[in-house]
Amino acid sequence: MPAFISFSSDFGLSDEYVGVCHGVIASLAPDVRVIDVNHQIEQGHIRNGALSMLRSIQYLPEGVALTVVDPGVGTNRAAIAVETPWGFFVGPDNGVLSPAVAMMGGASRAVQLDNSEFHLPNTSSTFHGRDIFSPAAALLASDQASLTDLGTTLDPGSLIPLLLPLAEIKTDRVAGVVWWLDGFGNCQTNISPEDVGVLGIKLGDQVTVRFGINERTVKWVSTFGTEAPGELVLVTDSAGLLALAVVGGNAAESLQLGDDQPIQIWPS
Amino acid sequence: MPAFISFSSDFGLSDEYVGVCHGVIASLAPDVRVIDVNHQIEQGHIRNGALSMLRSIQYLPEGVALTVVDPGVGTNRAAIAVETPWGFFVGPDNGVLSPAVAMMGGASRAVQLDNSEFHLPNTSSTFHGRDIFSPAAALLASDQASLTDLGTTLDPGSLIPLLLPLAEIKTDRVAGVVWWLDGFGNCQTNISPEDVGVLGIKLGDQVTVRFGINERTVKWVSTFGTEAPGELVLVTDSAGLLALAVVGGNAAESLQLGDDQPIQIWPS
Amino acid sequence: MPAFISFSSDFGLSDEYVGVCHGVIASLAPDVRVIDVNHQIEQGHIRNGALSMLRSIQYLPEGVALTVVDPGVGTNRAAIAVETPWGFFVGPDNGVLSPAVAMMGGASRAVQLDNSEFHLPNTSSTFHGRDIFSPAAALLASDQASLTDLGTTLDPGSLIPLLLPLAEIKTDRVAGVVWWLDGFGNCQTNISPEDVGVLGIKLGDQVTVRFGINERTVKWVSTFGTEAPGELVLVTDSAGLLALAVVGGNAAESLQLGDDQPIQIWPS
Repeated sequence: MPAFISFSSDFGLSDEYVGVCHGVIASLAPDVRVIDVNHQIEQGHIRNGALSMLRSIQYLPEGVALTVVDPGVGTNRAAIAVETPWGFFVGPDNGVLSPAVAMMGGASRAVQLDNSEFHLPNTSSTFHGRDIFSPAAALLASDQASLTDLGTTLDPGSLIPLLLPLAEIKTDRVAGVVWWLDGFGNCQTNISPEDVGVLGIKLGDQVTVRFGINERTVKWVSTFGTEAPGELVLVTDSAGLLALAVVGGNAAESLQLGDDQPIQIWPS
Repeated sequence: MPAFISFSSDFGLSDEYVGVCHGVIASLAPDVRVIDVNHQIEQGHIRNGALSMLRSIQYLPEGVALTVVDPGVGTNRAAIAVETPWGFFVGPDNGVLSPAVAMMGGASRAVQLDNSEFHLPNTSSTFHGRDIFSPAAALLASDQASLTDLGTTLDPGSLIPLLLPLAEIKTDRVAGVVWWLDGFGNCQTNISPEDVGVLGIKLGDQVTVRFGINERTVKWVSTFGTEAPGELVLVTDSAGLLALAVVGGNAAESLQLGDDQPIQIWPS
Repeated sequence: MPAFISFSSDFGLSDEYVGVCHGVIASLAPDVRVIDVNHQIEQGHIRNGALSMLRSIQYLPEGVALTVVDPGVGTNRAAIAVETPWGFFVGPDNGVLSPAVAMMGGASRAVQLDNSEFHLPNTSSTFHGRDIFSPAAALLASDQASLTDLGTTLDPGSLIPLLLPLAEIKTDRVAGVVWWLDGFGNCQTNISPEDVGVLGIKLGDQVTVRFGINERTVKWVSTFGTEAPGELVLVTDSAGLLALAVVGGNAAESLQLGDDQPIQIWPS
């Protein structure tokens, strides 16, 4: 059975950055296979990268998760590898790994990737994805290096955490934010069915949703195709969170919603 | 020799939806390899998905074709797997599979993917690509399930067909539509060289092409690079159909052509 | 250990062209693995394709490099395969392969891919990536064909070269061009640290950069994250060349820079 590296980044697909990392991995560990999870994380947006991994990790084969969203590349932020019950996480120590690490059981051990023996020669200051992270992931996945070979041991408790905004259940409403726009324009909030359940709201109910100066009354439905095309609905999405969606349309564009848009929901 | 799943969808590449399906397949069937055929099918556009598969299928390794263009996800449209002489087709029963199934010899057996034992636990209502279709494809490709394990047998004759528009040969012209804009902006029509041959038109001839209120006289050429840059030409494309193309340019943008644009061709 | 084909093209990812080439390779050589290096080379832009390969090749596993940027497809330009100490290069003879071939030790042997026995049947005139280049790459990578099986031997010295613009060191300045905009909007020039070193400029110095009618004084830094967000800097990029970058931003958009923009650098 092959070993897998699940690879996410904000490199985009418009040039060879992702392909070169694949090349580095294949050169060092030809039998390892790479799953491209998501390379269109918003550039430098640590929370978007962390949320993408948080949504994905339970579906990925155990092994190594390589996640590179690294606005501090070349500065004194640490490059790290973390051991969890699921497997290894490799990336910058800026919080992008933390939510998925926590979800998969937490860090049992961690190292700083400061052993240059396991970097590419002539390491650049601007592309640690290629020069430091991909080699570390390749060597871990293929058992050519142990975690502690790769560098100085770190206290797992010292890793940079990431605070994710929590929905607030108030007496008459739930307040949260839009925190992800998917490729269909569905606007995922940080509000769960359980959160609105506290206010007595049930699937199938009409609710009022406020965002900015807008208030819209929408139905909470279980899927898109049951309502009329063009209808704005609240849907329980595939991550189990409430999302605003336009049936057969693009809610983010129609409603001009973006990341971090505050949103409130109450019974109609 | 590895088994292959050829995977197409309208998920796009801007988030982790495609990557998560790869993760599900790798988790269930680590030795199976996945070919990403096309994930930028226009969202919810069944005919575009069906045509993309129709153009591709003869070039794909025998095995499993997984095609997810599924505007009715979570409604009462069936999720299906179909057996053909080429291999298995997995996807929604909305017509997206039908033209490729027919081209590869037709459906010998079919099932509805309603055996929840072979779904992911906690199946969502909005992402059957992850929860139902990817597992079915993985289990079929790796021989961990037989077709009939996956659910209730269906009459192959009862599957939803897809009617594709046919070119009409009239006494003095051929009438058809543009039905695909490729990534270079070439505008593929549903008109074949044989269709225009009925009117005596031969490769190298000048013809008149009408679209909307425009009429243009163009040469029917065998490839792009033989004519002057910027020239509008009719070309026999790689699927063997007539396409409007601008040499070194983008015909769809230059001519403002879109899907379903009616088009007529006659001898100049 | 699997054999690899490293595949680059200007096909884009908006349709099935790349996927179909993967299908052809998997059908002919199922054990070969394909690395997608870059499929978003600017359409028909030979130099962009050549530079992308030049930056990538040293990171790719030895084997076969398949590079298809082919504005002359179907004309009398030759389809070729070239042997080098690194492995084989397959693509059109228009210069797109030449810089990477030279970097990896030069061509020892070359053939024109004119043996139709090794083409797909019913070869199109517009998609040699599918019909000629992918089969050649697959058969070479899997040792099912030797180089000379694939067609007529060519004199390696007769292959089309590609002239890349060189930076000019003048008495008081270095003159070059922007020749690549990466996915982050960083503007790579053809000017190296050694070039500006001749004028006594050192990492950390302020320099004046002129492009068009603009002059900007910027600091030459080793990485992005050390300066303030929004700052324009000159950075030594991951290919070892000087690039204009905006910290946390997109220099190409901010400065309206494009390919081939002349640029001059002198000490401030």
